[in-house]
Amino acid sequence: MADRLLACDWGTTRLRAWVLDEQGRVQRGATFDLGVGKLKPGEARCRFEHEVRPRLGADGIPAVLCGMVGSELGWRSTPHIPCPARLEDLRAGRQQAAPGVWIIPGLTCAGLAGGPDVMRGEETQVFGWLALDPGRQRGRHLVCHPGTHAKWILVEDGAIVRFATAMTGELFDLLRRHSVLRSPDPDDLAAFDEGAEVGRSGLLLSAAVFTLRGRMAAGQVSPAGAASYLSGVLIGAEVAAMPRLIDEGAERVTLIGAPQLTQAYARVLKACGVSAEIHDGERAAQAGLHALAPPLGPAKTAHA
Amino acid sequence: MADRLLACDWGTTRLRAWVLDEQGRVQRGATFDLGVGKLKPGEARCRFEHEVRPRLGADGIPAVLCGMVGSELGWRSTPHIPCPARLEDLRAGRQQAAPGVWIIPGLTCAGLAGGPDVMRGEETQVFGWLALDPGRQRGRHLVCHPGTHAKWILVEDGAIVRFATAMTGELFDLLRRHSVLRSPDPDDLAAFDEGAEVGRSGLLLSAAVFTLRGRMAAGQVSPAGAASYLSGVLIGAEVAAMPRLIDEGAERVTLIGAPQLTQAYARVLKACGVSAEIHDGERAAQAGLHALAPPLGPAKTAHA
Repeated sequence: MADRLLACDWGTTRLRAWVLDEQGRVQRGATFDLGVGKLKPGEARCRFEHEVRPRLGADGIPAVLCGMVGSELGWRSTPHIPCPARLEDLRAGRQQAAPGVWIIPGLTCAGLAGGPDVMRGEETQVFGWLALDPGRQRGRHLVCHPGTHAKWILVEDGAIVRFATAMTGELFDLLRRHSVLRSPDPDDLAAFDEGAEVGRSGLLLSAAVFTLRGRMAAGQVSPAGAASYLSGVLIGAEVAAMPRLIDEGAERVTLIGAPQLTQAYARVLKACGVSAEIHDGERAAQAGLHALAPPLGPAKTAHA
Repeated sequence: MADRLLACDWGTTRLRAWVLDEQGRVQRGATFDLGVGKLKPGEARCRFEHEVRPRLGADGIPAVLCGMVGSELGWRSTPHIPCPARLEDLRAGRQQAAPGVWIIPGLTCAGLAGGPDVMRGEETQVFGWLALDPGRQRGRHLVCHPGTHAKWILVEDGAIVRFATAMTGELFDLLRRHSVLRSPDPDDLAAFDEGAEVGRSGLLLSAAVFTLRGRMAAGQVSPAGAASYLSGVLIGAEVAAMPRLIDEGAERVTLIGAPQLTQAYARVLKACGVSAEIHDGERAAQAGLHALAPPLGPAKTAHA
């Protein structure tokens, strides 16, 4: 099997890398604790060449990178392409960061409340999801990508038309780690559902999260359930705000992301009467990076 | 002038202490970096007797304490008195933590979304504000106490009837210090107003705060204006949600707290067509602690 492409989803908190063959099949992969948020200026290239490539046995093959690695905090700042944007627009916007290393640009659109909105990385997963089934190229899809900065993305006939961001994951993390609502890992489905109902009620979010405090003081939520409740409040509020976020109601939402998160969103969507289709974010990222790669050179075999 | 009472507002982040005379006039005061959040178990008493009393020359006079010092994290856990509650109810709930040291209980009420809500410390400022002018004992007042956990408090004929909490100050702090929206101290009024308008629009708060990110990326908000914008979004959203928070509209709001914060709230209230009356939180705390003190013993003069 020939190694043809080193595909990297390089975000704020970590780098996931896979070696793909010519058809985009994964040969091997690894996750690195090299999030852009932890890098010193100029460190990205050195780490990539001396740590990522050797560990994956990926010296000398082309590499394609998406995510925050293309921001001013990353390796090389690439522009945000304006929406509506198609796969070809992103291809045309690829930037060469070093010989054989290409970075995918981000996207921008007119955002909520008059300002611009931006994304880096999720677009690659959306185009990967589209590439995995030609039938998806036609029609209208509302895609949600949960995470640190959750994205709601409207796709029409193969183009990303517009999107909106909610800081749900980052708020959850801040509240759970640093606030008066500190709590252990979430693991209580009943508490999650209770929180989601409070979140969905449309109550001011800064008041809705504080309802956990009184419940904890009164022993109505166990310490083990506290983070689940908090997660429910934040996701519930986000899902309930969906029509306003993306200026579009929907009967079906495509969830692309990490299984634990997409399942939580699907649970809340279902409670709102919206059906959800779940797709794995890693698989979508691999397909997107493959679809966005520069033309590959001659194959390099293991003993070449 | 005789020293008669050591009055302490002892919260999560700091302790403010004043020596009062029999009429409640301030003789001297000091602020200590001894917030309950930083204390080890059992440390409160030791610090109070060996650090706070000596520095204020307040050995041997009665002390009255309000705030989180009465929580399970503080010196001694005191109960939450249920609303509606009057000054006498708080007096009756005072707990003796050590000889000559009294802690004021907190309050609880049926909160938003079905759970209980709690407060510790703000009730003392409200009763202090009431005590400063007998005319306030009658009628209905909507009081807002901005801060880490902002409180909206409905007062009727001298009793606190109910209240609601928004975690506005703590969210601001978390976002400003630890998030992707990190930013320096707020100092830009135009950016504050712009943020407040976004906050008031009713947009999902986790999306509204993220509108700063795109504006920063596009250079529409300066680094110096970023925290002001964020503060505006959070306060704007809170003020716009007031009728739902406290189940009560109002044409006039009484703001009690730190001058910088109460002025920011007054600015947003005014933009919403609501007039605001600003009162200093320290003065209110002193008056409340004086009103809630146990009967004072014989005077102790400076050379007694």
